[in-house]
Amino acid sequence: MSRLEIFFAECAETIDGQLDVLLPSDETEPTNLRAAVRWSVFAGGKRFRPALVFAVGKTFGAAEKDLKITAAAIEMIHTYSLIHDDLPAMDDDRLRRGRATCHVKFDEATAILAGDVLQTLAFQTIAEDENLSEKIRVRLISEIAQSAAKMVAGQQLDLEAEGRVISVEDLETIHQNKTGAMISVSARTGAIIAGASATELKTVSNYAAQLGLLFQITDDLLDATQTSEVLGKTAGKDERAEKATYVSLYGLPKARKLAENVHIGTCEELKKIRRETGLLREIADFILERQK
Amino acid sequence: MSRLEIFFAECAETIDGQLDVLLPSDETEPTNLRAAVRWSVFAGGKRFRPALVFAVGKTFGAAEKDLKITAAAIEMIHTYSLIHDDLPAMDDDRLRRGRATCHVKFDEATAILAGDVLQTLAFQTIAEDENLSEKIRVRLISEIAQSAAKMVAGQQLDLEAEGRVISVEDLETIHQNKTGAMISVSARTGAIIAGASATELKTVSNYAAQLGLLFQITDDLLDATQTSEVLGKTAGKDERAEKATYVSLYGLPKARKLAENVHIGTCEELKKIRRETGLLREIADFILERQK
Repeated sequence: MSRLEIFFAECAETIDGQLDVLLPSDETEPTNLRAAVRWSVFAGGKRFRPALVFAVGKTFGAAEKDLKITAAAIEMIHTYSLIHDDLPAMDDDRLRRGRATCHVKFDEATAILAGDVLQTLAFQTIAEDENLSEKIRVRLISEIAQSAAKMVAGQQLDLEAEGRVISVEDLETIHQNKTGAMISVSARTGAIIAGASATELKTVSNYAAQLGLLFQITDDLLDATQTSEVLGKTAGKDERAEKATYVSLYGLPKARKLAENVHIGTCEELKKIRRETGLLREIADFILERQK
Repeated sequence: MSRLEIFFAECAETIDGQLDVLLPSDETEPTNLRAAVRWSVFAGGKRFRPALVFAVGKTFGAAEKDLKITAAAIEMIHTYSLIHDDLPAMDDDRLRRGRATCHVKFDEATAILAGDVLQTLAFQTIAEDENLSEKIRVRLISEIAQSAAKMVAGQQLDLEAEGRVISVEDLETIHQNKTGAMISVSARTGAIIAGASATELKTVSNYAAQLGLLFQITDDLLDATQTSEVLGKTAGKDERAEKATYVSLYGLPKARKLAENVHIGTCEELKKIRRETGLLREIADFILERQK
């Protein structure tokens, strides 16, 4: 395994352990609700957002114990959004991370409630994190909530754009909200907990914004080129849903070129940080080159 | 108007003004999402939970400016839960507070997202309330989140109980979670912001628990005896859904008697508070006697 693969694996292990502690046991009533939450949380996700919290946090000198609870809370918010996005009224997806989506495994009502309670627990978790000062906790809740609200707005815009011709600017607005905001706040969270300066925080935000864009372009590329088996989720669904994507707007070759250019921009941003940023650079490389 | 009616009217005006400031304008993109949120938030609700925050807060000496933002946040959580509970996959209700429910007026996806973003905004709102210390803010977020999680668990239990024979104990567990927890934390919030002592807080919790139970019994009585026109929501739906209620378990006369006994218990609790508790007593009277 590469250094980055080891880093991701260690992050995933830490976060899974933390989530297991934070989430009610599936023997707690109502057991169906607890099982539905755990079904979706422990579905083998990449834990990319928590890894970004750790990577940025460690770059600026934060201790793992100060990062891991907020990182777990961010993963809860991410998972709640996946559960709700998969619902029949939204993307109507039956497969996620290689297995049945929450509403298919359980039922729609349980999936809606599982998403709801995961969001609740995310904010409770941060509010109760005694490793951090109360001042930092309210700041994190405020920033993460702002991004979670953007994520919801982005999903709404995305749904409304289905079957319509939209501009590149519209597509960017959708993704900056839908996926960019939570990726960006994951990076910012690491820097905030580490006590980074305002200038550093600005650079981290720019890095994360570029990284989020890169993530989305490669997501669109993978949806258009990979099989469901490889992705662990339904492939080719963007085209069937007549969804505007970087691939549908630019075509495959230009979308690939765009990804390469955004990757360069992401790495440029890192040069402004006067710290050892090798790990953050490797993450950008990984996103560019990922095959699933 | 009675003193209590004036109090409720003033609370509603304050909260509506506060919510109007806190919620994004319906000219903010995506406008459908903003309109859906405002449709449900400004549907003429009684603002009972905010009124309880104010009543308890003022009883223990808190200033209105310190109470109103958290009170608005609690109303956001209440409204999010109504939007989601009304969805086809849950209670499938088309009428609420005298008009079309959110998913009927807009669509299911928008209603799910409107509920989601209302919950997010509730926690953001408390985190950013500069009238309160950061210590109080994280405490409020923790307590309100715990109650919001219970509310979701209660809805799950309620759905699972439909069409089944359940015991009085099960029914109480459902309601303590589904409605009791948020009513209870509304009262506690007022006391926490006012800086009430631990003993006072305990008494407030007991008062609110009894009040929540009273609220549920009278809710069941109204569903069984009033018309949809009077209630502004679909009447008689409990019976059609074969839902266990205090009326289905005890019959009307015994359910009425139970309400009276719980009312007495609620008022007994107030005698332990060494403050002017006339307003809290009037609220208990109002719940017992309400006609909608």
